[in-house]
Amino acid sequence: MLRLKIISIGKTKEEWLNDAIQKYVKRLSPVLNFEFVEAKNNAQLQELISKEKRVICLDAAGQLLDSEKFSSFLQVQFIEGGSRLTLVIGGASGLPENIKLSYPCLSLSPLTMTHQIIRLVLIEQVYRAFEIAKGTPYHK
Amino acid sequence: MLRLKIISIGKTKEEWLNDAIQKYVKRLSPVLNFEFVEAKNNAQLQELISKEKRVICLDAAGQLLDSEKFSSFLQVQFIEGGSRLTLVIGGASGLPENIKLSYPCLSLSPLTMTHQIIRLVLIEQVYRAFEIAKGTPYHK
Repeated sequence: MLRLKIISIGKTKEEWLNDAIQKYVKRLSPVLNFEFVEAKNNAQLQELISKEKRVICLDAAGQLLDSEKFSSFLQVQFIEGGSRLTLVIGGASGLPENIKLSYPCLSLSPLTMTHQIIRLVLIEQVYRAFEIAKGTPYHK
Repeated sequence: MLRLKIISIGKTKEEWLNDAIQKYVKRLSPVLNFEFVEAKNNAQLQELISKEKRVICLDAAGQLLDSEKFSSFLQVQFIEGGSRLTLVIGGASGLPENIKLSYPCLSLSPLTMTHQIIRLVLIEQVYRAFEIAKGTPYHK
C-alpha cells in the first residue's frame, strides 16, 4: 500500500468540499492511503516536515507539469521513496523560503487557490496519475 | 449586474461538486450572474459561441496567469465587453483548433482536470478576482 501524506498550513474552512475530496480518497483507497495533516504555523510545519523521508513542496511559483508528467513524476517518487511521499502546501502567503529551497517544488497552477481547492485539484490529479499509469479511458 | 456565461462540452458527472460551486455562485450573486451551458459536441459549441459577443477560451495549453493578473484581465474584459463575458471550456480532448485560433486562450493550469473541477477552480478565481479588486483580506 502506497502512503501519501499531505501537510498544509492553516485550518480548513471549506468543510463543504470534504465530500468531493472523500470521493477520490475512496476511489484510491485500494492502492493509496491518504493522510491529511494541518500545521498551525510555519515553525510547526518545519518540524513536521523534518520527520518525513521524501518531501515535495506544492507552491504556485513551483515547476508546472502537465498531467502525464505529473503521473510519471509520482510513480518515480513512490518507487524511490519506498512507497511513501509527503506533499506540503503553504499558507496564504506561500511556503517559507528555507522550505522551498530545501525540497523540490511543484506547482499545480500559478493561480492562488484555497487549501481545500488545492487538495481537491491535487487528489484528482493523483487519481488521474494512477489512471494514466494504468492506461484506462479516464484520461482521454 | 455583470453576466458571466460558462459554456462547456459534455455532461456533468460530478454532481457532488455542485454544492461547492453554488457556494461561490451565491457569494458573487450581488454583483455577478452566472449561467452554465453544456454543449453536446464541438459543432453545438461552435454554434453557441458564434452568438456570443466576447469569448475567452480556457484550455490547458493557453496562457497562464497568476491570480492578480487574472483579476485585472477580468475587470478589463467586463469593461470592454459591456458587462458580459463568455468563457468556453473544452471536452476531454480539449477545444478544437479553429476555436482556439479564433479567441484568446487562457489556462488555469497545464494539468487536465474534470469539467466540474475546472468550474470550481474558475469560479473561486472569479470570486478571488473581485476580492483582489476590492482589496479585501480574502487574497492574502
